[in-house]
Amino acid sequence: MPEAARCVVLEAFDQPVALDERPVAAPEPGAAVVAVDFGGVCGTDVHLQAGRLPISLPVVLGHEGVGRVAALGEGLEHDALGAPLRIGDRVGWASSIACGRCFYCRDAQQPTLCERRRVYGITRRLDSPPHLTGAWADTIYLEDGTTIVRLGEAQPSEAVIALGCAGPTVVHGLLHRMPPRPGEAIVIQGAGPVGLAAAMYAQLAGARPAIVIGAPAQRLELASRLGVGDERLDIDALDIAARAARVRELTGGRGADLVVECTGVPAAVAEGIDLVRPGGRVLVLGQYTDHGPTPINPHLITRKHLSVDGSWAFSAAHYVEYVRTVPLLRERFALEELITAFPLTRAQDALDAARTGNVAKAVVVP
Amino acid sequence: MPEAARCVVLEAFDQPVALDERPVAAPEPGAAVVAVDFGGVCGTDVHLQAGRLPISLPVVLGHEGVGRVAALGEGLEHDALGAPLRIGDRVGWASSIACGRCFYCRDAQQPTLCERRRVYGITRRLDSPPHLTGAWADTIYLEDGTTIVRLGEAQPSEAVIALGCAGPTVVHGLLHRMPPRPGEAIVIQGAGPVGLAAAMYAQLAGARPAIVIGAPAQRLELASRLGVGDERLDIDALDIAARAARVRELTGGRGADLVVECTGVPAAVAEGIDLVRPGGRVLVLGQYTDHGPTPINPHLITRKHLSVDGSWAFSAAHYVEYVRTVPLLRERFALEELITAFPLTRAQDALDAARTGNVAKAVVVP
Amino acid sequence: MPEAARCVVLEAFDQPVALDERPVAAPEPGAAVVAVDFGGVCGTDVHLQAGRLPISLPVVLGHEGVGRVAALGEGLEHDALGAPLRIGDRVGWASSIACGRCFYCRDAQQPTLCERRRVYGITRRLDSPPHLTGAWADTIYLEDGTTIVRLGEAQPSEAVIALGCAGPTVVHGLLHRMPPRPGEAIVIQGAGPVGLAAAMYAQLAGARPAIVIGAPAQRLELASRLGVGDERLDIDALDIAARAARVRELTGGRGADLVVECTGVPAAVAEGIDLVRPGGRVLVLGQYTDHGPTPINPHLITRKHLSVDGSWAFSAAHYVEYVRTVPLLRERFALEELITAFPLTRAQDALDAARTGNVAKAVVVP
Amino acid sequence: MPEAARCVVLEAFDQPVALDERPVAAPEPGAAVVAVDFGGVCGTDVHLQAGRLPISLPVVLGHEGVGRVAALGEGLEHDALGAPLRIGDRVGWASSIACGRCFYCRDAQQPTLCERRRVYGITRRLDSPPHLTGAWADTIYLEDGTTIVRLGEAQPSEAVIALGCAGPTVVHGLLHRMPPRPGEAIVIQGAGPVGLAAAMYAQLAGARPAIVIGAPAQRLELASRLGVGDERLDIDALDIAARAARVRELTGGRGADLVVECTGVPAAVAEGIDLVRPGGRVLVLGQYTDHGPTPINPHLITRKHLSVDGSWAFSAAHYVEYVRTVPLLRERFALEELITAFPLTRAQDALDAARTGNVAKAVVVP
Repeated sequence: MPEAARCVVLEAFDQPVALDERPVAAPEPGAAVVAVDFGGVCGTDVHLQAGRLPISLPVVLGHEGVGRVAALGEGLEHDALGAPLRIGDRVGWASSIACGRCFYCRDAQQPTLCERRRVYGITRRLDSPPHLTGAWADTIYLEDGTTIVRLGEAQPSEAVIALGCAGPTVVHGLLHRMPPRPGEAIVIQGAGPVGLAAAMYAQLAGARPAIVIGAPAQRLELASRLGVGDERLDIDALDIAARAARVRELTGGRGADLVVECTGVPAAVAEGIDLVRPGGRVLVLGQYTDHGPTPINPHLITRKHLSVDGSWAFSAAHYVEYVRTVPLLRERFALEELITAFPLTRAQDALDAARTGNVAKAVVVP
Repeated sequence: MPEAARCVVLEAFDQPVALDERPVAAPEPGAAVVAVDFGGVCGTDVHLQAGRLPISLPVVLGHEGVGRVAALGEGLEHDALGAPLRIGDRVGWASSIACGRCFYCRDAQQPTLCERRRVYGITRRLDSPPHLTGAWADTIYLEDGTTIVRLGEAQPSEAVIALGCAGPTVVHGLLHRMPPRPGEAIVIQGAGPVGLAAAMYAQLAGARPAIVIGAPAQRLELASRLGVGDERLDIDALDIAARAARVRELTGGRGADLVVECTGVPAAVAEGIDLVRPGGRVLVLGQYTDHGPTPINPHLITRKHLSVDGSWAFSAAHYVEYVRTVPLLRERFALEELITAFPLTRAQDALDAARTGNVAKAVVVP
Repeated sequence: MPEAARCVVLEAFDQPVALDERPVAAPEPGAAVVAVDFGGVCGTDVHLQAGRLPISLPVVLGHEGVGRVAALGEGLEHDALGAPLRIGDRVGWASSIACGRCFYCRDAQQPTLCERRRVYGITRRLDSPPHLTGAWADTIYLEDGTTIVRLGEAQPSEAVIALGCAGPTVVHGLLHRMPPRPGEAIVIQGAGPVGLAAAMYAQLAGARPAIVIGAPAQRLELASRLGVGDERLDIDALDIAARAARVRELTGGRGADLVVECTGVPAAVAEGIDLVRPGGRVLVLGQYTDHGPTPINPHLITRKHLSVDGSWAFSAAHYVEYVRTVPLLRERFALEELITAFPLTRAQDALDAARTGNVAKAVVVP
Repeated sequence: MPEAARCVVLEAFDQPVALDERPVAAPEPGAAVVAVDFGGVCGTDVHLQAGRLPISLPVVLGHEGVGRVAALGEGLEHDALGAPLRIGDRVGWASSIACGRCFYCRDAQQPTLCERRRVYGITRRLDSPPHLTGAWADTIYLEDGTTIVRLGEAQPSEAVIALGCAGPTVVHGLLHRMPPRPGEAIVIQGAGPVGLAAAMYAQLAGARPAIVIGAPAQRLELASRLGVGDERLDIDALDIAARAARVRELTGGRGADLVVECTGVPAAVAEGIDLVRPGGRVLVLGQYTDHGPTPINPHLITRKHLSVDGSWAFSAAHYVEYVRTVPLLRERFALEELITAFPLTRAQDALDAARTGNVAKAVVVP
């Protein structure tokens, strides 16, 4: 176990991130120290830097990560699936720990809504022990209660980090709340990590056609090359009426059975409500940040007899299911090709690339 | 069977309805002629007169009705529940007939969305046989395929008509799409027939508290007298902030488990999304007519992890279930007290009363 | 806080229980010491004494209890619903603590199936600290992680203990797995605590008729007096064919929409599969102990298109929901009349009464 | 349109089928005459010949078929999906017509349970017009109300007939009642047409591993060659304990998430209840004929917290969905290789082959 570790710190909103260093603590009972192999860069990190989410600084960034076990606290002998855990094992971990006792954890059985959720890389301050609580660092300290999953041969680290938190977010929203049936026509709005993950899982579940609506062109080309989506509509090339016409053409004139919104743009929800067929479903996955109200016609919800569900983040169960299904995704989609690596020292460049959408998935590498 | 029957006709939009007369045809095989006892006046009738729905005139109004069998066509020997049907039996009937063959009837199994739905009092022209196709008339001609239910002692005609089409609409939306559990806190937006029916069914299903938000005061007083709702909030007395504060107070600070919108006012949907707790459900029953977009914050759908469902009208199954559950409603709520009767000759007055909300439920009586 | 407490101990299978005494430990952080007001006697206690379940003796019996807080460990300031908790408060508690980390807790999200479930009065040995881990005692030690709910005025201790663990077991199985709709015909097999609780919750949810099939006659008379069930069929008076005929008569010839088995007798499952209508549901709540195979015709499951679900015990969420809904039950059913109290010194008599079914619900009182 | 057509008739139980001939009637309004290309042979036909199902003879066999439109009755201009229908079009059709009016069609919304279901090749007598009501014939008369689907290029007749009624039966039971999620472990009991179809749809929906348990060896080899199932267990080579051990080995020691019984052997249901994990689901598709009770331990249903569903046949909606998803199945599985063709004159040989299981799917060809 190393004595000290470098870490990327967000010290102030709207300021470049900085590289810092902290001593590595020996793990307490149930905890683990992990040498990070990849830390994922997520749209949420962009929002965090821009001050759009109410967090307390300074914070070591990185809520997505994979690495190798450097030290194990007393009693931590198995991973979340019961497999033995040893020094050197490659592992992934769920970004959040739910309290298990609040109304949402215990009574409503929706731990994603936990009132005291702790999230690596977001809700912990650098200046409180164990300090190294983000994945953009040489090592991360995973405290007792973290959902750690050992990775096997069919789960290379590059593949697991490629979908980042988008993977388990889609497992939660799509597979558990609005599962597609084989043969259903699905529209995915957005070609970022969440949109691509939604398209892949929809295809894995047999949906057909899977129509991805997004931008920029290079992301759609990458999606095309990887076989993500059966058809891709470029919003820079087709206006809203042309997109609607194409979706209707592809769906027998009726609209999609299921629309999954993964854009973060409020107006996309209204477009999704238009694109779905009567009796269909709309899953709103992308409205993570608050951009205020947008004009939506509720008459369509009543008249078309819709189900509109929102879903946000994921719980430990969904992370475990994500890792379990990575091998299935990987057989069909070359996940590893999604990532673009940046050294830890260029973490700000990685953030900038995520902001502009010039890369499909930026990751930082210690 | 009478030779001729009077009927109330909508001849032109925005014009008073007129009394007319037509010969009564002998029923073809499977059809029935029914002497109307009560024809219900619904908010939809108000919309029809105002020209807000795309129908073809002239039309005999009245999609809600109860009456007594005057003549039975060959082969019509049992009602929809298999009970024998005889001349003189008191009956109710479902307002619509689904085609059974379109995509929505057969493939999607959602007959409420039938593409060729025929509806008494709405989609049939006076000048096509059998002419007498609305319930605001001395008799109505119920064609082969109509869902007719014989009424028993525990289903007095006044009680069955009291909820009109609001009853089966709530059976469909509330009981089948978003059923409440005993002990769940529910907010019902709207104190018209749909809102009152939603509150009653919610209470029948054990929801507690059932909070009705509506107006005018006299409707809320009637609701209070009948025991409809555990608490009633008058929108003329409490502004939106005061209503939200009261709902939070009644729901442990979290908001309602379930909100049922029954107002027809687009802004009510945004208020409902605010009043529901994280992880809760919103049922949009009231947006029957198109008033265009309203500002809705989709971030709340994602962040609160909501399910927002729309539901509209009902199928034959829901009408049958409505009639079957009238006795249960009646044990707890004096349904008959909801109605205010107008003679057929004063049908326009009945429509005006429905428009102003001065009565809970207007009915016309031949 | 008292220095020592008496407790009822099961020292050997098939032997009478014995009264013992142990010192009362001061509560560790998060734990509580509670002075027991009532300890419930459950059919499971009868099974435990008979050696039918694989537990390790000696054990202080009593997995059901209500009492008053005698001491609170550091940090335990609120109950499971967030209400402040103080010395002297009346409280109930969930009998089991799930580990929160095993496959069933985390991945399958079914904590009732937890692989390391700890249960008061069942899985803890008297000779391990904190010793006083059953409710048949003057005090019970509730360790950190126990789901404690403060009882209000509408939740008298006698009412909460009256349904014992049958209440939350029915919340779990009936309300969460196979919820009845208003107007559905339901058959409840069994007139013990689980059967009576199932009938009450079904009635609360609007099911009609609720038909209780059970024995002995005095239990059915008590049920009748309390309004539990709309009809009660005595298995000592009616043979299986007569019961089937009566159920068909009460359900339009088709059979029940839902059958809830609460007997523990394997053959009841086959009878339930016969009594349910095509397209109906069968909930198997009663087969808690293993009596081996019974003849069941699987053709009926296929041909009648049935859903047969099993459910066992409950999680913390269901206990909380049980306590929240006690006031609703109590408005309709005089729960307190179900209990027959025995002093702690006569715990064996209480067990014997539960075995013979001579009382509806035996409780022990310190 | 031909003047007469040959047809294969079951004249008496336990007797060889006979070839007969009947005149071809011109289609009435809404009806069609179809020149049969393939008539499928199903296990049900074997049961029919053996007299195990209560039907009235003589009957033209063949409830599964595909062919080309020879004549269209007035008004029949579109198929069930709205596509134009013309002479010469290749088509498939649903075997049954539900009445649309009985309790199960209208109130329970489960048309598969229709009380007056009419089924080609099963419930219609040869001696009643239109006589030619089975698919083992040169032509079949499809009456008004039949669900006819036009087949496209990606739906070759050989592929559509290859799964016969097993395809829509699995769409109904598996996709609509107990849909698998990507990554779920599924056991399919039975390697006949229903078992193979269940395995294919499970794989299409992303289930993994899909473990087929069946016989004889040559069917399993065919399945292996076509990629049906990830693993195949031969019941002639592995006893029940060895099968259970292998399933546990393949499912992390816990058992399958979902078991689909497709054997028709009552004891398979008990084995399925053993093979499923706690919290899992068991779908009983195979118990179509009544072989009486079998020993089943209901304690496992309660203790393991199971959902056991039965499902039988399918409605028009499921047939349409089957045809829509044939192209998806066909991309992964060489459906056409399943069939073995027999001329109409050798229909009895086809039946014998189906009985012995020597072929995967026998079809008769006029």
